[in-house]
Amino acid sequence: MQYEFGIMKKGAKNLITDVPGVKVGHCTVADGEIQSGVTAILPHTGDLFHEKCPAGMHVINGFGKSAGLIQIDELGNIETPIVLTNTLSVGTAFTAVVRYMIERNEGIGRDEGTVNPVVLECNDGFLSDIRGLHIKEEHVYRAIEAADDTFELGAVGAGRGMSCYGLKGGIGSASRVFECNGQTYTLGALVMTNFGSLKDLIISGDKAGKRLTGGKEETKGSCIMVLATDAPVSSRQLRRICNRAQNGLARTGGITGGGSGEIVVGFSTANKLKTSETVWHPAVFNENALEPLFRAAVETVEEGIISSMLNAQTLTGVDGHKRVSLSELI
Amino acid sequence: MQYEFGIMKKGAKNLITDVPGVKVGHCTVADGEIQSGVTAILPHTGDLFHEKCPAGMHVINGFGKSAGLIQIDELGNIETPIVLTNTLSVGTAFTAVVRYMIERNEGIGRDEGTVNPVVLECNDGFLSDIRGLHIKEEHVYRAIEAADDTFELGAVGAGRGMSCYGLKGGIGSASRVFECNGQTYTLGALVMTNFGSLKDLIISGDKAGKRLTGGKEETKGSCIMVLATDAPVSSRQLRRICNRAQNGLARTGGITGGGSGEIVVGFSTANKLKTSETVWHPAVFNENALEPLFRAAVETVEEGIISSMLNAQTLTGVDGHKRVSLSELI
Amino acid sequence: MQYEFGIMKKGAKNLITDVPGVKVGHCTVADGEIQSGVTAILPHTGDLFHEKCPAGMHVINGFGKSAGLIQIDELGNIETPIVLTNTLSVGTAFTAVVRYMIERNEGIGRDEGTVNPVVLECNDGFLSDIRGLHIKEEHVYRAIEAADDTFELGAVGAGRGMSCYGLKGGIGSASRVFECNGQTYTLGALVMTNFGSLKDLIISGDKAGKRLTGGKEETKGSCIMVLATDAPVSSRQLRRICNRAQNGLARTGGITGGGSGEIVVGFSTANKLKTSETVWHPAVFNENALEPLFRAAVETVEEGIISSMLNAQTLTGVDGHKRVSLSELI
Amino acid sequence: MQYEFGIMKKGAKNLITDVPGVKVGHCTVADGEIQSGVTAILPHTGDLFHEKCPAGMHVINGFGKSAGLIQIDELGNIETPIVLTNTLSVGTAFTAVVRYMIERNEGIGRDEGTVNPVVLECNDGFLSDIRGLHIKEEHVYRAIEAADDTFELGAVGAGRGMSCYGLKGGIGSASRVFECNGQTYTLGALVMTNFGSLKDLIISGDKAGKRLTGGKEETKGSCIMVLATDAPVSSRQLRRICNRAQNGLARTGGITGGGSGEIVVGFSTANKLKTSETVWHPAVFNENALEPLFRAAVETVEEGIISSMLNAQTLTGVDGHKRVSLSELI
Repeated sequence: MQYEFGIMKKGAKNLITDVPGVKVGHCTVADGEIQSGVTAILPHTGDLFHEKCPAGMHVINGFGKSAGLIQIDELGNIETPIVLTNTLSVGTAFTAVVRYMIERNEGIGRDEGTVNPVVLECNDGFLSDIRGLHIKEEHVYRAIEAADDTFELGAVGAGRGMSCYGLKGGIGSASRVFECNGQTYTLGALVMTNFGSLKDLIISGDKAGKRLTGGKEETKGSCIMVLATDAPVSSRQLRRICNRAQNGLARTGGITGGGSGEIVVGFSTANKLKTSETVWHPAVFNENALEPLFRAAVETVEEGIISSMLNAQTLTGVDGHKRVSLSELI
Repeated sequence: MQYEFGIMKKGAKNLITDVPGVKVGHCTVADGEIQSGVTAILPHTGDLFHEKCPAGMHVINGFGKSAGLIQIDELGNIETPIVLTNTLSVGTAFTAVVRYMIERNEGIGRDEGTVNPVVLECNDGFLSDIRGLHIKEEHVYRAIEAADDTFELGAVGAGRGMSCYGLKGGIGSASRVFECNGQTYTLGALVMTNFGSLKDLIISGDKAGKRLTGGKEETKGSCIMVLATDAPVSSRQLRRICNRAQNGLARTGGITGGGSGEIVVGFSTANKLKTSETVWHPAVFNENALEPLFRAAVETVEEGIISSMLNAQTLTGVDGHKRVSLSELI
Repeated sequence: MQYEFGIMKKGAKNLITDVPGVKVGHCTVADGEIQSGVTAILPHTGDLFHEKCPAGMHVINGFGKSAGLIQIDELGNIETPIVLTNTLSVGTAFTAVVRYMIERNEGIGRDEGTVNPVVLECNDGFLSDIRGLHIKEEHVYRAIEAADDTFELGAVGAGRGMSCYGLKGGIGSASRVFECNGQTYTLGALVMTNFGSLKDLIISGDKAGKRLTGGKEETKGSCIMVLATDAPVSSRQLRRICNRAQNGLARTGGITGGGSGEIVVGFSTANKLKTSETVWHPAVFNENALEPLFRAAVETVEEGIISSMLNAQTLTGVDGHKRVSLSELI
Repeated sequence: MQYEFGIMKKGAKNLITDVPGVKVGHCTVADGEIQSGVTAILPHTGDLFHEKCPAGMHVINGFGKSAGLIQIDELGNIETPIVLTNTLSVGTAFTAVVRYMIERNEGIGRDEGTVNPVVLECNDGFLSDIRGLHIKEEHVYRAIEAADDTFELGAVGAGRGMSCYGLKGGIGSASRVFECNGQTYTLGALVMTNFGSLKDLIISGDKAGKRLTGGKEETKGSCIMVLATDAPVSSRQLRRICNRAQNGLARTGGITGGGSGEIVVGFSTANKLKTSETVWHPAVFNENALEPLFRAAVETVEEGIISSMLNAQTLTGVDGHKRVSLSELI
């Protein structure tokens, strides 16, 4: 990609998995009128239920059915993989995550309380037969099992049937690195893009959407943004960092339409909360050290959105509906 | 019940279904180590998706996995039945509500966007084999089909396996009526109780929990509170009314423990939002007319919690775990 | 006081100043139709601007004009004394705190940003000529200077002209101690009470308000609740603890009327944030260690409210308006 | 201005005062090291206290000391002029608004409760001696009295001493018109700009900040955004519209730095709330009619920010600090 998005240094792979320990997997479910799937983000591959990650969330526009957000806001942590899928399959994904977690933790539902699945969604009904509820629990397990240090972008996993700015959307990612007190930290974003009107599209400052043709006028969709960092930041600070994702989205031209559910979840891999300890000893950034994290959130979300589009190939799905790839138009 | 809860006049049945049009149904799933179920609240029996009810929500303590809350807060309405069940079955209930709604609305997922299932939950794992995921979609449909003007209280439906103040909890309800501008209005509450330590229990001012024995010390649970009214109030006002549920809960002795997910959802059956209209013409109470609604929220939640306990019979469930009925102790 | 409020052990003085380092001072302004004042709470007596205290806030009912809350929520700290006064004098108190802080910190407004005064308020207009704006900046300084380990309760300081449950209200306080990991911690509350109808008053479970006479029917007021602790808790956790103040208030009979601005601010004296450090090393309670803090918040607010009333003597103020002391009626 | 900001039609004056009834006035206080002032926005010129305007607010980044926001969120209305000034003068402006309102309303503080001044602020300490507290109550009255259908932009009123993107900031404004159901409506924005680093500045898609020189690297400031419309929208909807201001700000390059208090207040002049009525009969837009309002919020805030810079002349203030006008650099 020859576009520039911001001024910070990129991570090695320019993916959310540049944050050490974070892994991403897809399960794409594509067959004629079914163009959907699941994407899973693992904050770490250890015992997530007993070593939770500090987390925060931010609702830009709550026209959405994502699960798990209320508890993230209250307790400031996540304890499961983060699963992305289509809107009407949130229930299936919730059940799959429950089953995945209780198989690995005998105490859940007995003496250790229940578990809070985090399931984020967009509506892929334009390209996929969303009413058929084709996502099954096994697709969720496959996405989790496929989680790795590298992963594909574009029309894959949960992003398979998504549309963005009237063109083909999907899964995008980017990362940035920065130094603080002599140490190097990374912040990465993974986005699932399903929003916007072509006329509004801005690519790195260029109002490309005004001159492009071939896109449907409007996408009634949403945008899911997941941020990960290895910087030691608190749940409250993560909430603040998540807020800046809106600036990144806006730089691509998004106006956050009424039907665009825009949800941000962020977590830190530093300072895992061990449930066995009564007192926790984190090292936490002072508030004035957050600036590179704010900037990185803006830049990675902006770049992630455009990367989701450039990497997504043209697709024809249900009812002959078609979304053209941005890469064919520029 | 010979206790007094507050000073307002009760509705005819002293149930949430005193609000005209509101119906409640249970599906109890009880078989040895399985002691669970589903309860459904129908705001009205018409076309909910195209005639939405103004709604608000309030999170007292967000240790919970309830679905649909974010969208209620953003859009201020509900468009599905409200379904209650156990924590780990939220996914199944979500899927069931999706299927129920798309069967009745061809546009969902096509040209009318998706749908926002409202599913509220408590953890009944002490009395029921919650890890077995025994709630099936058909149980949700049965609860919805069973919805009627009257309904049972206590250890029924979603309340089957719940515990409260170390005793048997379940489903409770109460209602209050009041006049405004010469017209009579009703506010009703339905609660699902699964929280508290016996030592804290207060019954209408009487600190009964201090002298009672026979209850387990503590319930790691939650409390779900649903408020309905036919008074014409806005979504913002409903959010305010929901807030007062915490006062009602506190009057029964609750301290809102860290693990007690306490969630309130409220809706009005006045001023239905017809999606076919561009401009809506509600009549809305002025802010200073809300006092009886605030008071009714406090009184009905207080009474509803105690009624859930008095109506719930002693039950022995999984692993021989037993919860005694408050009615046997006083 | 022979009433019992809860089950926890009280602090030595049963005041918010049982939290080591916390000091409280009053300046009472009483002269005929002027019955008002200022109360100041100092989280510590060091350099507050450069050693901020972690803080959280909770708005129960936002019918109020308190200053500083938005920044507490965002940054999770306080950096000034907390000042209480009457509603229309918030501006004067804000200016006084600004002046107090810039006199002690040359960097404020230059190279260290500005400062966030925390000013909390109730409307004492029933007993005092609130329209006269009689509180002057010097009254704020006097309250701060008077701050000490002990302080008077009742109709003093900012509580001078307040009414509660139709009787005389004012300043109340209480504290609780508890152990965690072999160490003893304290949580204390200071409340300013100006809300409620006499008929609703509950004293330690006794619905006294139903039989008492001599109180005006209703108070259009508010309740300010400040919580302090030396337990090492984060800003997010303080927000959670503040939430439980509502349960304490409800135990005294409060229904959180529409015009009752009920605001809670909490801070911890552990883990001061030194602005000179880039990385902060707090020790923080795990979420499951918060239960005694939740319970202490409920108990101290309940007891604090009743103590404000029992300690406040009968007062006649502007226009011959009179509020009777609860101590005369029971 | 030859730049294009968005695609909607502009209002006649391209000012917030294109919304019928809205008036704006400035009082500039400029004298050597004092470069500050006050700006007042009048939602209407009638009896604001008894005919309140529906209002909403949104906190993008709560590093700010603005007054009145909590009550706007709770009650959904404004009842005073909106006053802008420098951070440390919020107290003075609060008092001035109190005095202005009680002079016009005998019931305030007596039988009609108190009043909620809305005072918004940025830190002009780089160019002005903010520590001197030079703003007096009379400056507030003058700004209110000066309120008119047209008003100056740039380094005037409260914007006098503000900086933006390392250059001169100040007061900006823009408006958009749209049709709904055959009727024409207007949304206008007034912004006070005091944030950003020059390197980030984007003007209508052009990353001008990268090549411009002559600006200080960073502004530790804030951005205040006020939105007005004559479209009939509820307080909840106004909260949603305010949210989109962040997209407009982001389009100019803003990353919402940690110290940039970014606050949005919005109001509607339709459906005034008469306090004398128990039931209110508004006509309210359906949710799906909000799109032009969302888009207008984005466009007017983007254009308003750039207009504040283009209209602000180079200024030298306290300590010889200087901010150059954008108009000199392009």
